[in-house]
Parts: sequence; structure tokens; C-alpha cells
Amino acid sequence: MSNTESVYSSDLAGVVVGETAISDVQGEAGVLSYRGIDINDLVDASFLHVAWLVVFGEWPTGREQSAIKSFMCRHATLTDREQDLLKQVNRELHPMLMLQGMVPLLELPTEATLGRGLDAEQGLCIAAKISSLIAAHYRLGQNKSILEPTPGKLRHENFLTMFHGRAPSREQVRMLDAAQILQMEHSFNAGTFAGRVCASTLAPIQSSISASIGTLFGQLHGGADQAALEMAMAIGSPDKADAYVKDCLANKVKIMGMGHREYRTVDPRAKILKPMAVELCQDEESKNLLATLVAVEEACQREFGAKGKEIWANVEFYKGAVFHSLGIPTHYFTAMFAQARVYGYIAHFLEFRPQNKLIRPRALYNGTPPQSDKSAA
Amino acid sequence: MSNTESVYSSDLAGVVVGETAISDVQGEAGVLSYRGIDINDLVDASFLHVAWLVVFGEWPTGREQSAIKSFMCRHATLTDREQDLLKQVNRELHPMLMLQGMVPLLELPTEATLGRGLDAEQGLCIAAKISSLIAAHYRLGQNKSILEPTPGKLRHENFLTMFHGRAPSREQVRMLDAAQILQMEHSFNAGTFAGRVCASTLAPIQSSISASIGTLFGQLHGGADQAALEMAMAIGSPDKADAYVKDCLANKVKIMGMGHREYRTVDPRAKILKPMAVELCQDEESKNLLATLVAVEEACQREFGAKGKEIWANVEFYKGAVFHSLGIPTHYFTAMFAQARVYGYIAHFLEFRPQNKLIRPRALYNGTPPQSDKSAA
Repeated sequence: MSNTESVYSSDLAGVVVGETAISDVQGEAGVLSYRGIDINDLVDASFLHVAWLVVFGEWPTGREQSAIKSFMCRHATLTDREQDLLKQVNRELHPMLMLQGMVPLLELPTEATLGRGLDAEQGLCIAAKISSLIAAHYRLGQNKSILEPTPGKLRHENFLTMFHGRAPSREQVRMLDAAQILQMEHSFNAGTFAGRVCASTLAPIQSSISASIGTLFGQLHGGADQAALEMAMAIGSPDKADAYVKDCLANKVKIMGMGHREYRTVDPRAKILKPMAVELCQDEESKNLLATLVAVEEACQREFGAKGKEIWANVEFYKGAVFHSLGIPTHYFTAMFAQARVYGYIAHFLEFRPQNKLIRPRALYNGTPPQSDKSAA
Repeated sequence: MSNTESVYSSDLAGVVVGETAISDVQGEAGVLSYRGIDINDLVDASFLHVAWLVVFGEWPTGREQSAIKSFMCRHATLTDREQDLLKQVNRELHPMLMLQGMVPLLELPTEATLGRGLDAEQGLCIAAKISSLIAAHYRLGQNKSILEPTPGKLRHENFLTMFHGRAPSREQVRMLDAAQILQMEHSFNAGTFAGRVCASTLAPIQSSISASIGTLFGQLHGGADQAALEMAMAIGSPDKADAYVKDCLANKVKIMGMGHREYRTVDPRAKILKPMAVELCQDEESKNLLATLVAVEEACQREFGAKGKEIWANVEFYKGAVFHSLGIPTHYFTAMFAQARVYGYIAHFLEFRPQNKLIRPRALYNGTPPQSDKSAA
């Protein structure tokens, strides 16, 4: 290295790569806020109003509330070409690969109508279509026809109807709204950062969002949600949780959904999701799953506590129980995460682009010293 | 920030994010080597042998040379499903969006046959298919049928035949081999780094490569190649280059293809490409384009020199002239870059995965202090 002032950080845990006004993660206090508002005050609000707040930094006016509602419903109808494309996608393909692949291929608006610029318009159009892609991919996998949204209905009312082919209860819509609001934004997580690296080359918003989705897919990030519930299913019942946790610790196996790199206390999202899960999980199977999750968390706290360490469940942990009770199969969990987090991706793209600077870190070369048998002079 | 030891770097220019033995970029000396071998010693070698060297760190044995040749040809035939998918993609879509979108949707091998593990096998299969996707997308845009590779032919002989529908000259294949070898790998550039961030969550190799391709698309990265030749076309003739450069400097417009963040001297790849471009550009139009590029470089050196600064053309600058003379339209230039750089992406994925660590930088929150009207206790 010729640059003697360089620092080494393979995980960037101690490196600040920029400023943001979108969300504030206070890891020590266990507080998460979007645009200066604590998530506890947002979790019961309308999903699209919170999305607007996250993306544009202010609460939508009455006119904006109705504009975004009709905009999202209009773009949630996939074009014929998009439907034809999706029909060719392997139905066994993981929904996250489907989303990562479909986003750059989408047909996006070429003129702005919301008065917020074309990038915002295209980003929100992608967000609208992601929900429909998830529902349509699931329907096709069930050998059922693709359904379209109904104007006037709430966003998640439409989504659950398009997914299941039957209207959800008001309670189910409210729970999905809340779970998705909690997952909407979380500062410079790996997916958001990958989107930022992509945007830093002046790549367009669909490239940036697709890169974020691909990054969210991994088990150390969004993919933990699917893994956590599948773990609970594999354990089978609460009485087996203790042995499972001890076994993981003895074999240094990561317990999915436990612990979070940012929080040194309870994940504020998990704190809200846990009672929601209790409320939603009413049938025997759901109750058993939830009880198993609770038993895993308690066993973790006992075992880590014995070593003088503290650990808590993160947002992925109880979210799975909520989604499971809404009839979403586990392999769609991370796609549901993407469906919410995309508003954060859009917000970061819009915030970053005006002050854009190419992100290019340094490498330490540790290979064979370069040799040449020709003169390179 | 509670972490007082954190550093701030919005472009990560001074931050080392890891070690690598794949390539060494010596910016001051203007030397680039792959696996310890100077690119001047690799540029005339067989393309697939250099690809193997980059990916696996050693020169292929005779058996491996024949194995990789037949492997790449076999996987360069798109499956029926892949062809059907591509036929639904908008033919006007930029080839880089097509590639970013198609990569996660590809059908990949589920068993390793080369003895190098499944990730490597899937990565090389993606590399094989990228060439075919580019050729097929171009053919469909011309309302022509998709062509298949011929076993036994050289990789770029097949590619140019599948693209143009006619066999190239031996000289054209040699030039394309050389241009692509020069673009194969360049340490932790933005695209490679985005792929690394993606891989750090344990996302699969197709997600990582797709994220890299999306990042390469931007004009501050791979997209500069298309922009540089389009600039030369817009200038029109060498005598107008001086006024163009002065105008750009007066209006602080970036001159595409000039300067490189890593090199403080001539880009070693441009040094090799410039005489190749001279050799290839024989017709009047190509000669005029090349002369315009040379005039822009000279004008830049005069104007920057007057301010006591030095500047040189980078790899993108003359590469366009080479590709143009091979009959590749400008909007396919960056996709051609991806077709070569994908071997670097694979190499970095394979090198990084065993020592994987989640990459998650920090943000400095500069928004409204979080407020709550509910107790978050």
C-alpha cells in the first residue's frame, strides 16, 4: 500500500460512509425512527403514508395521500409483457431471485406525474410492481391465474387478495401493514449499502434496487427470516428448544434471528412484533410454532447469560410467525421483506444521487509479486 | 456517533476492505497483473486459459484446457426456457439491464463436474451464458433468429458468429481476445465491490454477479466506454476536439474515458489497446473516430498540462474504437465489458466466501432528532 493513511476494515463496522436523514438506528438505546419519528408512533399509521414519509421526508398532504394510493394501484397491474415474462420464469425459482431478475426488466414510466422527479416515480412504480410480482409468482406456482388489484382498496388488502384469491380480514391487513412498516427502513444495512455502491456509478434506480434485493437475499441479512421460522419448524416443539440451542452453541452453529449487529438491547421492532404474533397465532400449529420461538429465545438468553453475554431476538425472529399466520409460505418471507424495504432503497437513492461520489475501496494485495518477462516500459 | 474510533470516508478511497491475490493494480507505476503475471504477458494468450488463471489462480493443465473449452461451449447454448424468457424482454431495453435481470433467472448446474465446487461451476456457467444472451438479444433486436455455438470453435469465434451471423477473421478473434483479457479483472472496483457486499450476506453467486453487473452499468464505471465513443461520434472530427475539450473544462463537464482513479500514469491497458485500435481501424469512418479520440486525448493533456496536471486515457477510451471496428454497436459496449469482467467477479466470490464477513458500514444521522409521543419503554 502506498497510501500510509489508509485504514483496514473488512466489514466496515467502524467506517462511516455517509450522512443520512432517513432513519436513525440507536443501537444502545434500542430506538429506531424514520425521519425523526419513533417507529412506535408509525406502526399503526397507513402503510403508504409511512412509505411517503420515508421516501420524501414529510407526511403526505391530503392530495398526495390520494395521489399515491391511485398511483400504486395503477402500477400494481403488471403489463402484458411483464406477465408474459413472469410466466416463463421457472416456478421453482426462489422468489428473491425472481424479484432480483425481474426488477431490471420492468417497464417503467418515462414521465413524472407526482411532481417528485422521474427517479422517484420509477422507484415507486417498482415498489408497486414488486407486490404484484410476488403474488403473481405464487399464483402461477399454484397453477392459478394472475389477479389484478382493485382500485380503492387498501394496498395490503389488494396484495393479500391477489396472493390468496380471497379477501383478508381487516385485522390481517392491519397486521401486515404494521409488520411491513417495521421493515421499511434501517439505515445503511448491507442491502441498502449495495444499492448505494451501485448508484454511485450513476447506474439507474432499477439497477440499484435489484442489487439491494440480491443482497437482502442472503441468510446473514433478510434471508434470516425464512431460516428462523424453518428452524422453529424443524425443532418441532418448545420442549426441544433447549437441547437445540445447546447443540448449536457446542457446534458453533449460528441461531437464525437471534442477535443483531446494531442493537445492544431488545430490537425495537421485535418488541412490537412479538405481541402481534401472539395475537395472530390462534390455531394449534401457529401457537406451537410461536411457543417454540419463545422457547428458543429464552434458551438463548439462559445459555448466553451463563457466559455473561446478552442476546435478544431481532426483527426476523417473530416476523415469521406473523407471516405464517397470514398464510405466506416461508420461502416468500424474504420477498415480503423486500416488498417493504424497497421504500428505504428508493429513499436512499434519492438522498444519495445529488451528492453522488463513486464508491471504490482499496484492496491489500497478498498474492505473488507481479512478474514480467517482457518489458512493460 | 457513539463509536469514537470510527472513520469517515464517503468514497472509501482510503479504506482497505480486504486482501486479495487475484490482481494487483499498481497505480503509480502503471502496472496491472493477474495472479502475479503482468497483463503484457497475458494479452496474447488464449482467452479461456487466462480466465481459468484469474478464477482459479493457476494456469490450466492440458486436461483442464480442454475441459473448460467444452464446458463453456456446452453452457453457451441457452435452454429453451432461457430463450423464451429473452424473447419476452423488451428489445429496446439496454443490454446491461437485460443482463442484470437475466442472470438471476438463469438455469444453472446443480452438480459440479469440473472438480472445483458448485459455486465455480455455476459462475462459469453464467459467464458462458452471458455471451450468448448478448448475441441473442442483439439478434432478436434485428428480427433475426438466435444462433447456437459450434463445438470446437474458439470462444470469441463462436461469439462473433452468434452475434453477426457470419464467421469473423482470425485477426478479429485475436483482437477481441486481447481486448477482453485486458478487461477481465481490476481488483476492488465498484462492481466487484458491490458483488462482494452482496456475497457477504451469503447470497448465491448469481445474485452477486447480477449486483456487480448493475453497478458496472453506471457511466462513472463501465458505462464510460459507451459514453466515450458516443462523445467521439458527437464531436465528429479531430479538428473539433480542441474546442470540445476547452468547452468541457469551462463548464466542468466530465470528459468520458479520460483519467482513472487508480492510475497516476498511463493506464497499462490503454497502452496496449491504442496500437490495437490503430491496427483495426482501417476504413475511413473508423479512422476518423480514432483520430478524434487521439485529438481529444492530446487536447486534454495540453489543457490539463497548462494547469500543471497530468491526465491519460483509461481502458474505456480506445476500447470503443476496437469494438466499433468489430461491428459491435455502442450500446453493447458495457455488456461486452461485463462479458469479460464476469471472470473477475467469479474469482472474487470464490476468494471471499470462505472468509466471509457481513459488510455493513455506519451512517451519520443528520436528520431531525427522534421524537415520540408514546413511551417506547
